[in-house]
Amino acid sequence: MNKITGKLKMEDLFSERVAGMHSSEIRELLKLLDRPEMISFAGGLPNPDAFPIEKMKRVVSHVMEVHAREALQYGTTEGHAKLRHVICGGMDDHYGVSGLDVKNIMITNGSQQGLNLLSQLFLNPGDRVLTSDPTYLGAILTFRSYQAEIESIPLDDQGIRVELLAERLAYLEKAATLPKFIYLIPSFQNPTGVTIPEENRREIYRLLEKYGLLLIEDDPYGLLRFEGDHVPLLKSMDVSDRVVYLGTFSKILAPGYRVAWMIATEEIITKATIAKQAQDLCTNTFGQYCVFEAIYHDVLFPHIAEIVRLYKGKRDCMLTSMDRYFPDNISYTRPQGGMFLWVTLPESYDAFKMLSSAIEKNVAYVIGTPFFPNGGGHNTFRLNYSYASDDLIEEGIRRLADVIKAQ
Amino acid sequence: MNKITGKLKMEDLFSERVAGMHSSEIRELLKLLDRPEMISFAGGLPNPDAFPIEKMKRVVSHVMEVHAREALQYGTTEGHAKLRHVICGGMDDHYGVSGLDVKNIMITNGSQQGLNLLSQLFLNPGDRVLTSDPTYLGAILTFRSYQAEIESIPLDDQGIRVELLAERLAYLEKAATLPKFIYLIPSFQNPTGVTIPEENRREIYRLLEKYGLLLIEDDPYGLLRFEGDHVPLLKSMDVSDRVVYLGTFSKILAPGYRVAWMIATEEIITKATIAKQAQDLCTNTFGQYCVFEAIYHDVLFPHIAEIVRLYKGKRDCMLTSMDRYFPDNISYTRPQGGMFLWVTLPESYDAFKMLSSAIEKNVAYVIGTPFFPNGGGHNTFRLNYSYASDDLIEEGIRRLADVIKAQ
Repeated sequence: MNKITGKLKMEDLFSERVAGMHSSEIRELLKLLDRPEMISFAGGLPNPDAFPIEKMKRVVSHVMEVHAREALQYGTTEGHAKLRHVICGGMDDHYGVSGLDVKNIMITNGSQQGLNLLSQLFLNPGDRVLTSDPTYLGAILTFRSYQAEIESIPLDDQGIRVELLAERLAYLEKAATLPKFIYLIPSFQNPTGVTIPEENRREIYRLLEKYGLLLIEDDPYGLLRFEGDHVPLLKSMDVSDRVVYLGTFSKILAPGYRVAWMIATEEIITKATIAKQAQDLCTNTFGQYCVFEAIYHDVLFPHIAEIVRLYKGKRDCMLTSMDRYFPDNISYTRPQGGMFLWVTLPESYDAFKMLSSAIEKNVAYVIGTPFFPNGGGHNTFRLNYSYASDDLIEEGIRRLADVIKAQ
Repeated sequence: MNKITGKLKMEDLFSERVAGMHSSEIRELLKLLDRPEMISFAGGLPNPDAFPIEKMKRVVSHVMEVHAREALQYGTTEGHAKLRHVICGGMDDHYGVSGLDVKNIMITNGSQQGLNLLSQLFLNPGDRVLTSDPTYLGAILTFRSYQAEIESIPLDDQGIRVELLAERLAYLEKAATLPKFIYLIPSFQNPTGVTIPEENRREIYRLLEKYGLLLIEDDPYGLLRFEGDHVPLLKSMDVSDRVVYLGTFSKILAPGYRVAWMIATEEIITKATIAKQAQDLCTNTFGQYCVFEAIYHDVLFPHIAEIVRLYKGKRDCMLTSMDRYFPDNISYTRPQGGMFLWVTLPESYDAFKMLSSAIEKNVAYVIGTPFFPNGGGHNTFRLNYSYASDDLIEEGIRRLADVIKAQ
């Protein structure tokens, strides 16, 4: 409690949840990487060459010419009605999820806000969330900001290990500490690039049914498949309304509009809408109009094929360089899509200590440890292949190989 | 805890804070008001005639021509560096707040997100916030979503009653229940339109010093002054870092970009940035570029004079009509700026019951009760004069007078 005093006692003012807040290691690190000579595989940015700039010039002009009075105004909290409607159809045509109504869809300020809204709706301090190990750092930060406990299950090149998940759920059920929800990125996961195969997804869905659980399917990269067969979404198996789906235009159009969507039952969407009213009233209307018109004028879907071609080339370039330059005792994933791959060094290596040598040689990665909610991963790191040019990818991997060999 | 069951028990899954969530009465009401024949004074929207659409066409084209690769990309959580820099200068030139550094400024997804971030940083469940009575409904919703207790102090045509504020703080100090912060909209308050005079602001600042308190100064309408002298911001008196200032481009440029700013100590901005990372990573970059270029190409400030001329005419039209048609026993505020005025009926009237008669006659207002955090205001309502055309303002007030007279 404050005293009568000339000085503010900030430490008495901040809430308890502030104690659990730490700056994202990735974001802090990114600030160090602004040197022009740095080859950075550390970010998670789409390549600006993947933005359909010329086509979007016409789309944005059209929004200003025809829709400015609405696009510059406040919008509803749920989001632009026409955009929600076209997402309904798109989920059927492009994602294999049928039977949706506009009432099942809300627009969010990035999928990160979807995660935050769901955390606000479901998590009391001390509640459990179950994730794979490693998992998306932004999800860890959000769950922790609600003082949740994170249970994590190891993954392999088939994603979360389903037999371990089944064992853990049986244990947690007996201990009456089942999680409020499971959080997964089933396709081309951040940070590892791995994809859960269909039969494992069906087993995961059976576990949801068995234990009466909810699952958040975070799917920013699903349409960025370079090769191999499409794997059905968990949402497409969801006969019992157990899956909340998060999609985004950040990786398939452009992140700068900050437009994403959440699919859930009408009950959850209604509560999430009330929560969003108190958080930010609405997502930027202008960006929603730009995204809708990009879909309506058929800019979006033909463009995804171009992104896939661009990123496939970059992934090939990175993997070919790694196969060529990396020592044999280094293993790494071979993602069929998305933006990231994952490197595992021998146990005796320390990716964090190695990073300063790498930065000295002007190449950077993200160390693996922050992606592990409960520790571990000292000998792992994440590489992003979507951002750097092909020449720099090869040169960066060559430098990184030198750093590894010097250990 | 979930049971092994085929059915999800949603009531067991939702967090405790969901119990305190209710849909905003205003937003729910607005959905009923879509009839084209309705004259609505119920909204809080800027007038699209106040959007500088022709000038913004050139600004938006410029952003796409010159800055698309950056404007369509993710941005930093703190916000577009050039925009933060120009806000620094603008706070000195246009708001009378000097000595700021870029590190004191962050960009938010509307001021509503500023309120949400500050609530996350400061409010534990059960903590106290002190507001005027009535106050902005969106603030009440946000504070309640963090399970805060709201203490409220009556206002009159000079804003919050400073002598009552002093008494209450003395009492709360003795009871060791001082608020975590005070929340005020000192200029052209929503919902009443009243402005706190300079001497009262200085007294409020002395109380902050005396009791070691923080204050949030929410200032969406400050530059929309139609007449009378500028009143210095509380932030301009802030020698001891006690005031967090919230500004927005929603009412002086356009809400559709969803760009606002927060000014606070570097410590608070750093923590708010960490909180925002977990909430939504960043505010939409495209909107931030549009707003920055609007300021840089001198579209913004000359345009504010046009908004002021437009809204002054509408306020005059509404007040003249009220003076002419309303019975003598109805009192109302005469705001010198902003977008709202406030009507007080005799004690025996019920603004909620009267609303159905009003809607029958195709005229609408917002009842006062939701703006009172602790009850009261049954005989009050808010009128918005920024949105309707002058003709409809006069016709709507005439209808409303008939409704009042029929009571």
